[in-house]
Amino acid sequence: MNDQYEIKTEIAIVLYEGFTALDAIGPYEVLSRMPGARVTFMAVKPGPVRTDNGMLELVAERALEQAGEPDIILVPGGPGDVVARAGEPVLEWVREADRTSTWTTSVCTGSLILAAAGLLDGRRATSHWLAMEELRRLGAEPVSERVVFDGKLVTAAGVSAGIDMALTFVARIAGDTLAQAIQLGIEYDPQPPFDAGSPRTAPAQVVELVRAASPRVQAQGA
Amino acid sequence: MNDQYEIKTEIAIVLYEGFTALDAIGPYEVLSRMPGARVTFMAVKPGPVRTDNGMLELVAERALEQAGEPDIILVPGGPGDVVARAGEPVLEWVREADRTSTWTTSVCTGSLILAAAGLLDGRRATSHWLAMEELRRLGAEPVSERVVFDGKLVTAAGVSAGIDMALTFVARIAGDTLAQAIQLGIEYDPQPPFDAGSPRTAPAQVVELVRAASPRVQAQGA
Repeated sequence: MNDQYEIKTEIAIVLYEGFTALDAIGPYEVLSRMPGARVTFMAVKPGPVRTDNGMLELVAERALEQAGEPDIILVPGGPGDVVARAGEPVLEWVREADRTSTWTTSVCTGSLILAAAGLLDGRRATSHWLAMEELRRLGAEPVSERVVFDGKLVTAAGVSAGIDMALTFVARIAGDTLAQAIQLGIEYDPQPPFDAGSPRTAPAQVVELVRAASPRVQAQGA
Repeated sequence: MNDQYEIKTEIAIVLYEGFTALDAIGPYEVLSRMPGARVTFMAVKPGPVRTDNGMLELVAERALEQAGEPDIILVPGGPGDVVARAGEPVLEWVREADRTSTWTTSVCTGSLILAAAGLLDGRRATSHWLAMEELRRLGAEPVSERVVFDGKLVTAAGVSAGIDMALTFVARIAGDTLAQAIQLGIEYDPQPPFDAGSPRTAPAQVVELVRAASPRVQAQGA
């Protein structure tokens, strides 16, 4: 891409055992295409980190303590309460990194981690549609929108919403033209075969099926 | 998810140095949620495989020769001609695996690998919008659609189109209800901030910007 769009941007994506791959990879695919951007995958320990279903490992290049002061931090979600809060070292790092970040962001239940770290108290935020009440219990003001900005805190709805968040983001950081160019580069002209991606549009029996199958809901007894 | 949806399905995703992460992870995130599905990441050698921008490694769990006879094979794309054809061991494996697969699929320029393996001769197929002429030169009949079925060969357009392909696919294999449940589970209710995901809808100067920046176009002198 043209040099005129070059902005040096350090982006840290935090991985932890049981994260959901698309939560991290959607935004990575968009943000890594900004000229001057460097995305680094981090974890408590560097090395392979296993996803929620156990079928894949992504490699964390650096330990959290080597993260420096990234401009953007991104926390993906993962199923279940225990995993979602990701442990004290992650919470502590998120709190610390947020002090110097330009943007602190999450996808899906990554917002529960931000909330557990104390960053969303009284702030407008979103999460996976099944986790909105939990988000409220953790002190945030849940908003059923795809991407929610509250100052420098930016949260996206479930899993695939990270792509929309990242594009929205690039437009704010670097302008509409670059965001459109990245959208065209990844040919993001979505044509889902059904209108079932939100509990507002999916057939009622599909909503019930997903709700019943959710380990999150079972853990809460909700 | 309910046992009634359980169908044993072995899915092999082939990684190679320089692949595009979202091409692989979009479909993985959908297909891995089918009850009874097992997604395995493969490569010439097991171990970490680096993506196109050098910022991330995914771990290939098995060598291609250990792949067995997967029901579904999926080939992601990657930038540039050399990478796109991924080398003879990949081409050979794709040819071999296609003999016993139920579905042979690709995302983005992964279709150039299928074509280079000789699997798309005279068949309707799609690819990244910048690679359609190359697809034709490799013997396929390029079709500018998001997801193209030709018998058991299924190809998706650029990068993000793999999500739509996988959902379309799940509906065919396991029915609309399960596909809708997975769509709702990943909250795939896309709201791109711009209507710029296709060369048909993006502003002309954005199309030119992306075309000019493409290593694929530069390599072809097109």
